[in-house]
Amino acid sequence: MATVIIRNGVDVGALVETIEAIEARPELARFTFGARTTWREGTHATAEIGAFEHAGERDETRERPFVLVGDEPPVLLGSNKGPNAVELLLAALGFCYSVGYVANAAARGIEIEEMSYEIEGDIDLRNFLGITGEVRPGFHEIRAKAFVKAPGATEQELKELCTYVQDTSPVKDALANPVPVTTTIEVVG
Amino acid sequence: MATVIIRNGVDVGALVETIEAIEARPELARFTFGARTTWREGTHATAEIGAFEHAGERDETRERPFVLVGDEPPVLLGSNKGPNAVELLLAALGFCYSVGYVANAAARGIEIEEMSYEIEGDIDLRNFLGITGEVRPGFHEIRAKAFVKAPGATEQELKELCTYVQDTSPVKDALANPVPVTTTIEVVG
Repeated sequence: MATVIIRNGVDVGALVETIEAIEARPELARFTFGARTTWREGTHATAEIGAFEHAGERDETRERPFVLVGDEPPVLLGSNKGPNAVELLLAALGFCYSVGYVANAAARGIEIEEMSYEIEGDIDLRNFLGITGEVRPGFHEIRAKAFVKAPGATEQELKELCTYVQDTSPVKDALANPVPVTTTIEVVG
Repeated sequence: MATVIIRNGVDVGALVETIEAIEARPELARFTFGARTTWREGTHATAEIGAFEHAGERDETRERPFVLVGDEPPVLLGSNKGPNAVELLLAALGFCYSVGYVANAAARGIEIEEMSYEIEGDIDLRNFLGITGEVRPGFHEIRAKAFVKAPGATEQELKELCTYVQDTSPVKDALANPVPVTTTIEVVG
C-alpha cells in the first residue's frame, strides 16, 4: 500500500516522481506557454491563456482558457476595468515565489501555515509617454517582501529557503536578467 | 466650445494634456504600483491589485482591488484554478503592447479597427525543480506577434509604430533588460 504524503497541499510523492521523470528524460522539463491578447477599446484589452506545449505535446487539460482583463486607471486614460500590464508583472512575481516556496518547503518537510507577498515596483512613465528617452521605460526597482508563518521551522531555515526560491524563480529570473524578446507584426487586410 | 477627439477609444486631448502636465512637472510620471499575493493551498494563490502611488500620493480610484487567481496545471502539481506565473508575464506583454500601440496610434492619427497579440515563451523548468543549475530558471525566449487591422494607415506606418512601441514598452523593457529585484522575508510568529 502506497502512502500519500500531502504537505502544504503539495503531493510530495508526485513531486518526487516528476523530478525523477525529468532526470530520466530532460525534455519533459520543456514548456512553451502562451497568451493571446485582444484589444477592446482605448486602454482596455482582454487576454486568454489556455493550452500550452509540454515536451512537444499539446496540454489540453484546461477545459476553457482563463480570461484576464487589462486596463489603465483614469490618470493613465483608462477606466479601471482591470489592472495594468506592469501590475501583472508584480502579481506574477508573487505567484512564482509562492509556488516555489511552498513546493520546496513541502520537499524539505516544512509545513507552512500562512504565507503572503507584498510586491512593489517603481516606474517613471516619461519614456512610455514619449517625453524623454533618458529614463528606462520599465521598472527601476522591484521590492518583494515575504511573510511566512511556519512554527515548525527555524527562522534560519525559512530565510535560507527564501534565498533558494529567489535563485530558482522563473519570474525573478525573467525580471532580473535579460530575456530575448522578438516582436513581429502582421498587417491584416 | 472644446472639441473632444476620441480615437481608438483614447481621448487624444486628455493624452496631450497628460504629456504637457508631465513635461511641466516630471514627478507626475512617477508611480509605485503594487500587488499582494496570498498563498491558498499547494500551487494555488490569489493576488490583489488595488491602490497605487502616483507622484507620492495614493490613487484610490479603484473601488475595490482586482483579484487574480494563480495555479499550476496538473503536470506541475496544480489543479488549473488559474494561469501560472510565467503565463501572466506573457499576458502582461500583450497588454502593454496593446496600450502602447493604441495610444500612440491615436496620437498619430491612425485609426485601429482590430488588434491582437500572440505571445509565446519557451522555458525549461529543470532549474526551478532543483535538477540542474545549468539552465536558467526563466524564459529562454519570448516571441510576440501583433496582428493589426488599420485600413487607413500604410503597412510602413504600422510597422514603424510597432518598432516604436517595443522600444518604449515598460513590460518589454522589464523582460529584455535587467530590473533590480530585492526580496526580503519576515517570519511571522
